[in-house]
Amino acid sequence: MAHISLPDGVPGIRGPLAQYPNTAKHLTGLTQELLRGPSTLTPGERELIAAYVSSENNCFFCTNSHSAAARHLLGDEADLVEQVKLGVEGAHISPKLKALLGIAKKVQVNGREVTGDDVARARAEGATDQEIHDTVLIAAAFCMFNRYVDGLGTWSPDDPKMYDLQGAHLAANGYGS
Amino acid sequence: MAHISLPDGVPGIRGPLAQYPNTAKHLTGLTQELLRGPSTLTPGERELIAAYVSSENNCFFCTNSHSAAARHLLGDEADLVEQVKLGVEGAHISPKLKALLGIAKKVQVNGREVTGDDVARARAEGATDQEIHDTVLIAAAFCMFNRYVDGLGTWSPDDPKMYDLQGAHLAANGYGS
Repeated sequence: MAHISLPDGVPGIRGPLAQYPNTAKHLTGLTQELLRGPSTLTPGERELIAAYVSSENNCFFCTNSHSAAARHLLGDEADLVEQVKLGVEGAHISPKLKALLGIAKKVQVNGREVTGDDVARARAEGATDQEIHDTVLIAAAFCMFNRYVDGLGTWSPDDPKMYDLQGAHLAANGYGS
Repeated sequence: MAHISLPDGVPGIRGPLAQYPNTAKHLTGLTQELLRGPSTLTPGERELIAAYVSSENNCFFCTNSHSAAARHLLGDEADLVEQVKLGVEGAHISPKLKALLGIAKKVQVNGREVTGDDVARARAEGATDQEIHDTVLIAAAFCMFNRYVDGLGTWSPDDPKMYDLQGAHLAANGYGS
């Protein structure tokens, strides 16, 4: 049972978003901009960063939701999600994405962990300022969302089908619809 | 020097907010709602939660900015900010605020750390669902802001006067103005 009263049968972050609309509108707007706004990182790559950070924070609901969204967006490369969660350096992803996920992991621990060398590596692999900025903010934002979901003790369904359906919806429609 | 190009001479989070307005509008709207929106927690109490979480995350810029804002808002009780940072249980604050700061500390570590007993303690001291929700989300949001500020290596001035001036401005005008 959640730590506060939330709508029955509404999973994860969707409970507090429904119950507290004054903050929800900003949280939803931020997510839509970060994961679906104009970017040289694809929505699938950005969902992968979100899924990875959520996995490192052990947030069951967010990890499963954003892994499913990433799988639907990555299509033929859907297995990259599990590869990344098993280990970034061994995954079959671009050197640029490896470097950006390395920055995301540092941010997940604490922003102060990010070094000039981490950023130089990403830049050497072709990452732009905007991509570095967005990676830092996606990782930081999921450190918030994960804590919001788990700190309120929200309900996380066990059924993988629920996450797959939700991931398909997020892949097709984004956030706030 | 910051890890990405940011406006010269603009400290802390204000650099990336100025450079990246598409995400800034959501971040600023969230902060205004959380710290200045309608609430039975005073703006001073909410800035105190923000300062405490930022301090636990070792974010120099956010700790000093929100400590200064809290001091200006708390007026005669300005020394509570340092008391809380030295140890919540020994601070001269209400039992309810101690319980809420206890929840904020758990959220700062990981949302999964928050237990039913933590919430029951807050409720026994008079905390409402809305206050527990807002405490969790303020703590979670500052886990994002702290990582955004430090993960980009933004400039943090050393001069306490800068933070005092900024704190006075935040106390008087809130966020987004």
